[in-house]
Amino acid sequence: MENPGSLDELIRALRCLPGVGPKSAQRMAYHLLQRDHEGAGRLSGALAAALDRIRHCASCNTFTEAEQCAVCASTRRDRTLLCVVETPGDLLMMEQTQSFSGMYFVLMGRLSPLDGIGPKEIHLDRLLKRATDGVVKEVILATNFTVEGEATAHYVSELLSAKGLMVSRIARGLPVGGELEHVDSGTLAQALVERRPA
Amino acid sequence: MENPGSLDELIRALRCLPGVGPKSAQRMAYHLLQRDHEGAGRLSGALAAALDRIRHCASCNTFTEAEQCAVCASTRRDRTLLCVVETPGDLLMMEQTQSFSGMYFVLMGRLSPLDGIGPKEIHLDRLLKRATDGVVKEVILATNFTVEGEATAHYVSELLSAKGLMVSRIARGLPVGGELEHVDSGTLAQALVERRPA
Repeated sequence: MENPGSLDELIRALRCLPGVGPKSAQRMAYHLLQRDHEGAGRLSGALAAALDRIRHCASCNTFTEAEQCAVCASTRRDRTLLCVVETPGDLLMMEQTQSFSGMYFVLMGRLSPLDGIGPKEIHLDRLLKRATDGVVKEVILATNFTVEGEATAHYVSELLSAKGLMVSRIARGLPVGGELEHVDSGTLAQALVERRPA
Repeated sequence: MENPGSLDELIRALRCLPGVGPKSAQRMAYHLLQRDHEGAGRLSGALAAALDRIRHCASCNTFTEAEQCAVCASTRRDRTLLCVVETPGDLLMMEQTQSFSGMYFVLMGRLSPLDGIGPKEIHLDRLLKRATDGVVKEVILATNFTVEGEATAHYVSELLSAKGLMVSRIARGLPVGGELEHVDSGTLAQALVERRPA
């Protein structure tokens, strides 16, 4: 006794989703087939539509349906500032702050040699070309403050500084509303090292 | 700045999967579009194929592509025994023990009034008809030993006993290889209550 073929195939296919193992995949398949035919049909269509329509912005590399994304196509942005982020989600987070009016470059990942993700996979050749277009004056590195994000920032910084570009890194420190008592000691130590004139 | 429309729709559609919230859905969508076009295409097709082909076995209610599932169609099974389980996954687990040769009925859920899942949703009318076919002699309740599974077993037991059927429940106790020191006290207490002649 086994699952029918098309159910087995669905369970296998669901495992391409990050963080989904065999048990979760089975639970998801049962749920869709038992309780949410509409959702399953919609997901099937949405996957096909996204595969068909989504591509990378020619300038900043984020996901878009057009040749260029809305930010890159806008005429109101400051083209002398280039902010480097890891993912399209990070780009959206930056935009939500409403405090950055420059351009972006989305790496679509971070350096992670153990996973086979090197400079080529995060498109550093394209970033180099983009940053040395003669218009960009400052590159702001906004990768995550994880080990891999930090390593990526360091690598990109070396790469672009060598071309005479000004390269900066977003600040580490206590979060807004943060209390010394509740912050981890590593963050507090960094906040002390990177103190600035009051 | 927002995600492109088809990407937004994909993120929304992924949320129909159980246990997937907005952040996971975004991560999944980015992963598929960035790193696994093949997997995404396969998932889209597998969903459509499963929706098209999978239906419920006319006898036991499990998922099947035919009119009847392999177990129900087999001529070698003992038709006097009927085992009631919650999901098709539970049916597969029972089959893996290779120690049950009777028939099954799959509830496709468990009683859970707060989620709107009552006797009708778990097909108790069909179970009643199936169990009183004149051939079934004993009904074995193999729902989970969770609060909801226990309540379901109790309800089904009352329902079928009233029709003069013999109803049994799979045993609770220590797992094979289990040590008293490491088992929870509830299980140990049950094992004591349900002790049997050595």
